[in-house]
Amino acid sequence: MKKREVYLDNIPLIEAERIWLTIMEGIEPLEPEIVDVRKALNRITAGPVFAKVSSPHYHAAAMDGIAVAARKTFGADEKNPVRLKQDIDFKYVDTGDPLPPGCDTVIMIEEVHPIGDDEVEIISSHSPWEHVRGIGEDIVATELIVPENHRLRPQDLGAILAGGHVEITVRKKPKISILPTGTELVSPGAKLKPGDIIEYNSAMLAGYIEEWGGDAQVIGPVIDDYKMIKSKLREALETADAVIVNAGSSAGTEDYTSSIVQELGKLYVHGVAIRPGKPVILGIAEGKPVLGIPGYPVSAALNMNLFVKPMVYKMQGMPTPSNQKIKATLSRRVVSAIGVEEFLRVKLGRVGGKMIASPLSRGAGIIMSLVRADGIVRIPALKEGLESGEKVEVELLRNEQDIENTVVIIGSHDVTLDVLANEIKKTHPELNLSSAHVGSMGGIMALKRGEAHMAGIHLLDPDTGKYNISYIKRYLSEQNIVLVNLVFREQGLIVPRGNPKNIAGIEDLARDDILFINRQRGAGTRLLLDLKLKELGISPEKVKGYEREEYTHMAVAAAVAGDGADVGLGIHAAANSLDLDFIPVSPERYDLAIPEEYYKLDSIQKLLEVINESKFKQKVMTLGGYDVSHTGETIFVK
Amino acid sequence: MKKREVYLDNIPLIEAERIWLTIMEGIEPLEPEIVDVRKALNRITAGPVFAKVSSPHYHAAAMDGIAVAARKTFGADEKNPVRLKQDIDFKYVDTGDPLPPGCDTVIMIEEVHPIGDDEVEIISSHSPWEHVRGIGEDIVATELIVPENHRLRPQDLGAILAGGHVEITVRKKPKISILPTGTELVSPGAKLKPGDIIEYNSAMLAGYIEEWGGDAQVIGPVIDDYKMIKSKLREALETADAVIVNAGSSAGTEDYTSSIVQELGKLYVHGVAIRPGKPVILGIAEGKPVLGIPGYPVSAALNMNLFVKPMVYKMQGMPTPSNQKIKATLSRRVVSAIGVEEFLRVKLGRVGGKMIASPLSRGAGIIMSLVRADGIVRIPALKEGLESGEKVEVELLRNEQDIENTVVIIGSHDVTLDVLANEIKKTHPELNLSSAHVGSMGGIMALKRGEAHMAGIHLLDPDTGKYNISYIKRYLSEQNIVLVNLVFREQGLIVPRGNPKNIAGIEDLARDDILFINRQRGAGTRLLLDLKLKELGISPEKVKGYEREEYTHMAVAAAVAGDGADVGLGIHAAANSLDLDFIPVSPERYDLAIPEEYYKLDSIQKLLEVINESKFKQKVMTLGGYDVSHTGETIFVK
Repeated sequence: MKKREVYLDNIPLIEAERIWLTIMEGIEPLEPEIVDVRKALNRITAGPVFAKVSSPHYHAAAMDGIAVAARKTFGADEKNPVRLKQDIDFKYVDTGDPLPPGCDTVIMIEEVHPIGDDEVEIISSHSPWEHVRGIGEDIVATELIVPENHRLRPQDLGAILAGGHVEITVRKKPKISILPTGTELVSPGAKLKPGDIIEYNSAMLAGYIEEWGGDAQVIGPVIDDYKMIKSKLREALETADAVIVNAGSSAGTEDYTSSIVQELGKLYVHGVAIRPGKPVILGIAEGKPVLGIPGYPVSAALNMNLFVKPMVYKMQGMPTPSNQKIKATLSRRVVSAIGVEEFLRVKLGRVGGKMIASPLSRGAGIIMSLVRADGIVRIPALKEGLESGEKVEVELLRNEQDIENTVVIIGSHDVTLDVLANEIKKTHPELNLSSAHVGSMGGIMALKRGEAHMAGIHLLDPDTGKYNISYIKRYLSEQNIVLVNLVFREQGLIVPRGNPKNIAGIEDLARDDILFINRQRGAGTRLLLDLKLKELGISPEKVKGYEREEYTHMAVAAAVAGDGADVGLGIHAAANSLDLDFIPVSPERYDLAIPEEYYKLDSIQKLLEVINESKFKQKVMTLGGYDVSHTGETIFVK
Repeated sequence: MKKREVYLDNIPLIEAERIWLTIMEGIEPLEPEIVDVRKALNRITAGPVFAKVSSPHYHAAAMDGIAVAARKTFGADEKNPVRLKQDIDFKYVDTGDPLPPGCDTVIMIEEVHPIGDDEVEIISSHSPWEHVRGIGEDIVATELIVPENHRLRPQDLGAILAGGHVEITVRKKPKISILPTGTELVSPGAKLKPGDIIEYNSAMLAGYIEEWGGDAQVIGPVIDDYKMIKSKLREALETADAVIVNAGSSAGTEDYTSSIVQELGKLYVHGVAIRPGKPVILGIAEGKPVLGIPGYPVSAALNMNLFVKPMVYKMQGMPTPSNQKIKATLSRRVVSAIGVEEFLRVKLGRVGGKMIASPLSRGAGIIMSLVRADGIVRIPALKEGLESGEKVEVELLRNEQDIENTVVIIGSHDVTLDVLANEIKKTHPELNLSSAHVGSMGGIMALKRGEAHMAGIHLLDPDTGKYNISYIKRYLSEQNIVLVNLVFREQGLIVPRGNPKNIAGIEDLARDDILFINRQRGAGTRLLLDLKLKELGISPEKVKGYEREEYTHMAVAAAVAGDGADVGLGIHAAANSLDLDFIPVSPERYDLAIPEEYYKLDSIQKLLEVINESKFKQKVMTLGGYDVSHTGETIFVK
């Protein structure tokens, strides 16, 4: 048996942050460097910038017109115009021209009446210094233009150049080396075999560092070899201001980072009571920060924000900007472990005046939860979770304007929603479609609680054999609902290519040699299964795998494709996309149920327009298994 | 006389925006280009990105531990442990390893008890699929990762790589050429003679374009020559997606842009009823947008935001993000012309729970007003202005967090405030000092109205010969005030180097051959002058230039330096910084008056700490004319 280190601290986040803050206090802003002002956008000043020259540096005409001595105009009015001779009494000046000697005011060209070639008439009296920009009107030499520790904006560059500078002293960009480690890692684009993992974390990590003003360099990937990692880390420490070792920070066989940090320097923290992200390493080696960031992408992103972000800003002499926060109402209950601070990803949407936060997948390995997330809700270590309807504070991951322009659809999953999301973004870039997949009944309940603009549903009524309407009447009796057809689609059994177990229909699910993969309770597909099983007199206990639930058609198809199951019930498009076989069971109607108050919204009307366009319908047809002949039609109004 | 074009439209902004929007509707997003995903941060997708592979693409261990067939653990508990043999019953797996054939669950290493070298004991039963990441748990092949028209964030890059992509199709960056024009323009760094203007606008314009996702190129500066500008514009149009001609958009002698646009294409707008920014040109030449942007920096920045920003975003297929807006209370009355929409720059600060907006300099040529501004207030064309205390909507130019961390000081100007602003930013990067210069009495009144955290004052009481205290008692009778000394400073007459007019003291201001430059009403320096004149029995009418007012010591010094005046009253530091001579008149005390409620604030305490540090005092001493022996001392508490 290999030697295994199974010890991991589990200190509270606040304690880890305190330790890190203390370490950070010892880190001075980086050495300055001198750059061309014109290339200094977004750089941080390493010292105050005082004007070297005034702007303007001479008395300048502030208008196109004539420059004169004001006293020559005294007494002029419409009845007693004053005539002035060019070059003797006045000179033409354009905006910015220096005031000629002897002149102390500028008369706008609109008030000057030419009389012949070199004479003009003035019909009002003028005071000295009209339309004149005195020396230093904008910037006075020696004046402070921008202080130290200031992030340079476009207008700052203009003012600094105007103040006579060509170069400026700014902080060096913190150089952060990223060492992806793992023998299983392969570079993007390589052919994949089981066990290979595409090394994609470093691109995300580098992206964050760049956003925070740093300069990221990826070295590797490096295989899981103690000496190799140590040597690469030492090499990186020679030139970088800090090093991030990605993965290998846990307590597994090949998690070497903590030992290497201990060997090369001092390990301060190994393991923080947060979820995701627990196995983080904070240390110093050769005087520079070394962080071990876990391999799961969400854990990695979270630790980057907690520990790397303040470090990168500190190295630039800047405070860490905090994310904008808003209040929202949680759409469903979330249970969380005591003693662990959880960072819950949520989708946000403004529905009927209320900002609704819907929890996303909580797995540390689900990078798509970060792609989909609009914000993060912190569940404190001492709370057992959050209740449905609870007011929560959300740290925003995208801007509020985008969130306000989001149409929230909750309900059953269908691939056409992806197509729709893209078509909307293409046609109306300001709009976003956010879909949460909780099954048809989940969608109905979301409408009832006022948490969604619409629900995607395909609920078969076993008594009438009809779809959706009876459920709306029963569960949404107090709301006015418009039901619009999205598609008709084929439900059927998804089986591996070639149908190796010769499955012919629902009746085969009771066979002993067949492992089924089911959908979650409340899913329309599960209702269909239950109805079909009942019709055939098959008890659910007879179906092996009935208790194993997936939340989407694609997940069911993936389970079949990956040997996790022999068969699942789902839509044709899901089978097609993973190149699986499909045995039709039943066509069904998939509708959008829209409360009337939202139906009238501009955003919803735009969405319905997109659905009605032939471009959308054509794209859906190419998926296979869909019928769009009623797409966009209003089925029912209550 | 030269031929002059004096015609300029003056259409309402809403009309100009409507015309521009119509033109923009004809502009398609730019052609896509293919880039490495790892280099695509902040780029805009030119099409939907669907996953090519699932992630994981095999069933993967989600924990370090052992992989087993779940059924082998059935029935295990503390009393009936189950023993498993390595390679026969189980295999060690690290996180991410593929599930070996025959295994369907993973037991965490913490729950595995080694017995000898190749055997382990399990004391609980495990279900299938524990700690297993099924195929597609994160991303299912064919799933939509990000839609078209999406700005790529770090997590998106990770997910797209995880989905099997190495390259991605993104929008080209809009290539915008900037042509600075003007014979008077010189490049930064050149030696300046009167009439020369440093060409600094293009750096600011390029900065904005870069911020909005474009790729800016500066061509020039180009001299004011019709043929030259036309030829450079045609050249630029060959490769750029749009061209900005900077300056020459007005109606002066050498304002050629409108004629050139008319010759090469179509002129849609020339002149919009906005201030600053009126003389803007919007046109199309050779099928591409050509904009004439005025030369004054604030006019230029404003028109960039109004017209170029939506264009650059449209070319990327994106909606124009709008600035965040907040409500604030205007600190003083602003009169505005009817028929013109004004864009007022304001400083913001939270004082006693109220967000206060203080108007900044309104000149189109004052780039420092953009550097200092925290936001913009729009004064509609049909309003005559805004009242003091009026609630206004402010478009933010910096983030709200920075504004919340701003200490607002209103009152008399002193150069040490610049030194203080920089020392604070250096010591506490999260803090900002915002100072508005409205004279000592203006500061007192700002405290009375609750618009500032502190006032900088040097008010001499002619009856007692003492500073500040009697004014506080008289005008701030209802507030508790802490008065802290900032500096003692020398007030005196500022004269050109060598004192060419032999000025010896205040009495010389009555001389016929002497032109004085005064400070504004309410300035402590003006009170001092009035007192001294009274003592000498000199009537203000006798002083030539008494009616010409400047708002700061530096502006007074600049007027003397630039031949605009023979003498002014001001502080030693201002004379020093412009290399002028100084004739001492009187030492005076400059204090900070701080209401007790703000005195206790953490931010104010930090500011007072900075004032008490010897580093600050030393920097002040190097300015000359200051006495810091009482700096930081509390003078008086009411």
